Amino acid sequence: MDELGRARRCADLMYQNDRSSKSLGIEFEVPEPATAVARMRVRDDMVNGFGICHGGMVFALADTAFAVACNAYDDLTVAASANIDFLRPSNAGDELRAIAREDRRGRRTGFYTIEVFNQRDELVALFRGRSVSRGEPILDRG
Amino acid sequence: MDELGRARRCADLMYQNDRSSKSLGIEFEVPEPATAVARMRVRDDMVNGFGICHGGMVFALADTAFAVACNAYDDLTVAASANIDFLRPSNAGDELRAIAREDRRGRRTGFYTIEVFNQRDELVALFRGRSVSRGEPILDRG
Amino acid sequence: MDELGRARRCADLMYQNDRSSKSLGIEFEVPEPATAVARMRVRDDMVNGFGICHGGMVFALADTAFAVACNAYDDLTVAASANIDFLRPSNAGDELRAIAREDRRGRRTGFYTIEVFNQRDELVALFRGRSVSRGEPILDRG
Amino acid sequence: MDELGRARRCADLMYQNDRSSKSLGIEFEVPEPATAVARMRVRDDMVNGFGICHGGMVFALADTAFAVACNAYDDLTVAASANIDFLRPSNAGDELRAIAREDRRGRRTGFYTIEVFNQRDELVALFRGRSVSRGEPILDRG
Repeated sequence: MDELGRARRCADLMYQNDRSSKSLGIEFEVPEPATAVARMRVRDDMVNGFGICHGGMVFALADTAFAVACNAYDDLTVAASANIDFLRPSNAGDELRAIAREDRRGRRTGFYTIEVFNQRDELVALFRGRSVSRGEPILDRG
Repeated sequence: MDELGRARRCADLMYQNDRSSKSLGIEFEVPEPATAVARMRVRDDMVNGFGICHGGMVFALADTAFAVACNAYDDLTVAASANIDFLRPSNAGDELRAIAREDRRGRRTGFYTIEVFNQRDELVALFRGRSVSRGEPILDRG
Repeated sequence: MDELGRARRCADLMYQNDRSSKSLGIEFEVPEPATAVARMRVRDDMVNGFGICHGGMVFALADTAFAVACNAYDDLTVAASANIDFLRPSNAGDELRAIAREDRRGRRTGFYTIEVFNQRDELVALFRGRSVSRGEPILDRG
Repeated sequence: MDELGRARRCADLMYQNDRSSKSLGIEFEVPEPATAVARMRVRDDMVNGFGICHGGMVFALADTAFAVACNAYDDLTVAASANIDFLRPSNAGDELRAIAREDRRGRRTGFYTIEVFNQRDELVALFRGRSVSRGEPILDRG
């Protein structure tokens, strides 16, 4: 199995059991190892009291792309911390897409950037995540 | 109307229309102005592929407490950025509570700390938010 | 030795050999365990090309207060990460003071807030630090 | 004047009056517009009480590269906030180099990543900066 195949199998296995991403309607693809593109349509029940998409939903989309990207190596990896800048509000009906890339990966710690765009290719949020690996395989669990 | 009454009316008005927080089952109270306690039970559909609560759901709870705390002044205020450290995983059935406090508030920018605990009073996440006010009233919109 | 005595001895021992803080003219005190107040006068050679205090110098002051606060337990502890918001420029001649407090401390990881004020008690910067302990004593090294 | 020429002239003008970067022995170059490489040798007077380079000095180096990169457009721009992860200690004598790149630039706000390496090409720190422009020219001031 090559690197991309492994990354995709890890992602598929995670997604199979990921009830949270499914409940948000998030779908993703893995164009290259250690990257991810995740998509989510802003539903009416994702909108807050000011009529804009809840920051937690934007974060959840970015965090899902982050999880897919950092789990490309068959080494169970979780988010240790994240920073998000909200640059532009989103509204119900918007089609958001989060693009994750790996900036650095050391033995246990990794750093990722996730950009969230809307359907007009405007940057909605910039997310930076720090991951920590647990040193356990993912695929063996399948 | 005193400060606490104003903070609570702003929170109630926001929550009335906040479909996202309602869909997550989040409830809150406002013990003092510029504070908030928000609660959420981790449901089965909030769990990710590793069997732990999706970071986006923990973030959403903290972000809701943050929004309530920073909108205490009848001045429409949104999250500009946030940082979250995930200290401990949460599981389905856990009862999370997010406690928001104001650290600093200037003319337009505010800084808040939100701590998320589980039912064993263990710290699950530490969230720091920066808010920006829009200079528009909240209560007039009701 | 009580907690405050221990915190002060750790701080004194660190400072004895801290050529960097001395070269910046930083002085500090330890009012209570796990806190610190550090002071620095903005010198002409701390000013950047726009005539305002270099952000690195403001960071260094806050970071010194952070180091003193998180090393109160005779357990060698270093900065793992930090976030700083620059709220107001400082000028040559300003007298800055950084006030550090502990927000949370776990077995290995601690979270601290450091506020930097000028001589007019205006908030210049807000610094959040995450520390990691090495599990080695400080005082034994003296 | 082309983009690179403008970026270099802005950098030179800033550096001319930047007593702080000079006092730290920082030198830089501008390989492309909106990038920068800054270098600093860790001097004996940059070392803290634990014998390692003060985090504030590492931050100052990264912050200088950040300032050069974000001031490439003849639009006076300052740091609004920054996050730094310290990945590896540095010692006296180490030759550090900070490489700044622009991730995103909007009308007023920009996001930059600065990586700090040592002479063994090991990543010492990862710095993320958010800049805000003042809407004033730099070169006119020369």
